[in-house]
Amino acid sequence: MEILNEDQLYTQLLKLTAQISDLDEEAMEKVQNRLDSLTKPQGSLGQLEYFAKQLGGIQRTSHPKINKKAVLLMAGDHGVVEEGVSAFPQEVTPQMVYNILNGGAAINVLARQANADVFCTDVGVAFPLEGNFLDKRVANGTQNMTKGPAMTRKEALQALLAGAEVAEKKIQDGYNLFATGDLGIGNTTPSSAIVALLTNSSIESVVGRGTGIDDSGLIKKRKAIEKAIEVNQPDANDGLDVLTKVGGFEIAAIAGSILQSSASHVPVVIDGFISTAGALIAAKIAPKCTAYMIPSHGSVEVGHLKALTALGLHPVLNLNMRLGEGTGAVLTFQLLEAALHIIEEMATFADAGVSERLT
Amino acid sequence: MEILNEDQLYTQLLKLTAQISDLDEEAMEKVQNRLDSLTKPQGSLGQLEYFAKQLGGIQRTSHPKINKKAVLLMAGDHGVVEEGVSAFPQEVTPQMVYNILNGGAAINVLARQANADVFCTDVGVAFPLEGNFLDKRVANGTQNMTKGPAMTRKEALQALLAGAEVAEKKIQDGYNLFATGDLGIGNTTPSSAIVALLTNSSIESVVGRGTGIDDSGLIKKRKAIEKAIEVNQPDANDGLDVLTKVGGFEIAAIAGSILQSSASHVPVVIDGFISTAGALIAAKIAPKCTAYMIPSHGSVEVGHLKALTALGLHPVLNLNMRLGEGTGAVLTFQLLEAALHIIEEMATFADAGVSERLT
Repeated sequence: MEILNEDQLYTQLLKLTAQISDLDEEAMEKVQNRLDSLTKPQGSLGQLEYFAKQLGGIQRTSHPKINKKAVLLMAGDHGVVEEGVSAFPQEVTPQMVYNILNGGAAINVLARQANADVFCTDVGVAFPLEGNFLDKRVANGTQNMTKGPAMTRKEALQALLAGAEVAEKKIQDGYNLFATGDLGIGNTTPSSAIVALLTNSSIESVVGRGTGIDDSGLIKKRKAIEKAIEVNQPDANDGLDVLTKVGGFEIAAIAGSILQSSASHVPVVIDGFISTAGALIAAKIAPKCTAYMIPSHGSVEVGHLKALTALGLHPVLNLNMRLGEGTGAVLTFQLLEAALHIIEEMATFADAGVSERLT
Repeated sequence: MEILNEDQLYTQLLKLTAQISDLDEEAMEKVQNRLDSLTKPQGSLGQLEYFAKQLGGIQRTSHPKINKKAVLLMAGDHGVVEEGVSAFPQEVTPQMVYNILNGGAAINVLARQANADVFCTDVGVAFPLEGNFLDKRVANGTQNMTKGPAMTRKEALQALLAGAEVAEKKIQDGYNLFATGDLGIGNTTPSSAIVALLTNSSIESVVGRGTGIDDSGLIKKRKAIEKAIEVNQPDANDGLDVLTKVGGFEIAAIAGSILQSSASHVPVVIDGFISTAGALIAAKIAPKCTAYMIPSHGSVEVGHLKALTALGLHPVLNLNMRLGEGTGAVLTFQLLEAALHIIEEMATFADAGVSERLT
């Protein structure tokens, strides 16, 4: 990684956010006209029709296409695990990185089915790693946020821009549809803090059981979040401040990958709770990026729906999942492909000689 | 079609329903044990895990497999269209049959993507048809149910068994996953009557706009359903009576295809409002068949959720669709395939050397 000072990092972030524009309304209107000519009651394909329009608006064309697909999986560790907030030991983060590199994790299985590639980036795992991952490590895990900021402002910028760089490289390689993905023991704790702050919600209403913590763990988790917010006093109007004080490296990288996708006119499917916390950070930094976000599933994790709603998103899959890794997002790829097949392959009323509506 | 008298038809239906058994609990337990050994928090894949278990229970094996997939699309017309209950003219039913035979309808596009075949059966279209469809026509559309029963008891049995026969034939041909599908101008009207009766709901709460009728049409539709129930006095405890008096031929065939699938240990994905009305009829005739049903999307059509809930089903896709044809059901196929890939391809904790949970 090129070593940049803080000024240079800010400059790079500002360049990135300045590139994020509105969707192309004209392309969307063309897709809508096409949809309305097809042999079905107008609007009857609901969200599939919206997806077709959104992809047209993002790609600036009435014939959007999906070429190569990828899951951008960001991994990081969390100092706050010292507080007993997770059901699994921290060693599971590197173990799961290896499991992913070996193709044995849920995300590998679901990505194979979706014909998508999985790219795993170490943004801040706390253990040594070797193998075929992308090395963008900012630090060996965050600091314990109950005792001070999770990271420095510079580290937050580095992790954001690392995510953006990964997305940019993959876009150069021809990928034009992304799923966000996360890996990191303890990461529902910073995510809950972010969601509480950025949706102006009570901590109780957004703290869930993560990988499956018990009642006493849940109490510890709530207390850790309360303490982190009290100690750090994050400014909820400043996405970077929230990220720095109560965030995580993989969450920052997810936010950065969303910003870059938006700047490059590439749709990005938002996975579950951690990814949505990243999306909230991205939207706080550059509000226009929400137009490039595509919702996937509604997680079991308490507070996910609240976070999605704050972004103007509604889940399209209702599977009671709570795994992360990008698993819900990658399952959504086929729905986007379905939307594009509809506009390319369906017959029109005129082609098929089907009568139009009476009234 | 073999010509059977009413006694013979009843005998055949009884034979069919007698074959429907409970799921194989032992196979389901084996699938559950496998799921719990995989590198993910227990239960974190939610409904995908349940699908894997359900498919194991249906196929009586810990390694369920999906081979050939089909949409069983049933078409029929409805005498009640005389009452002005639909936004489209009745001619659209045969026009859409041809559109489907030519591969231009939404269901063709989505089935191609899912690698599924579409089989269109004429169970009672009101117009002459020719081409490559399955001819099981019972009559040229139903009678106007506001003036008397939609069909005779014998016709109801014939249409039910026609649906069963289509499913049986396709199972013999190696298909082992079905989506239900419907086609028939006016068919949300009988479906609403069925749902009102079989979920014990008010007519208002289950009558929607179908293909998109306006306010005055909606009033006519409600009145037609009220009148049909008043004139015919269907017995809500008798699925066949409800079907005969306020049903439709395609709805009967959908119910029959579900009964046959269940009897043959083949999972069947239930599409939207009309299919769910058919599923309610099937469940009233043979309650055990609900174990073989797989939910798909939640339709925009008012009353769909109520009908699904009565069957113990919850939608997994939330796409605001209202098209029918099997479009929501076929989009669900990939989720079932994902469930099976998970149990076959994911690494276990032991294989991957991943630590188990702390508590």
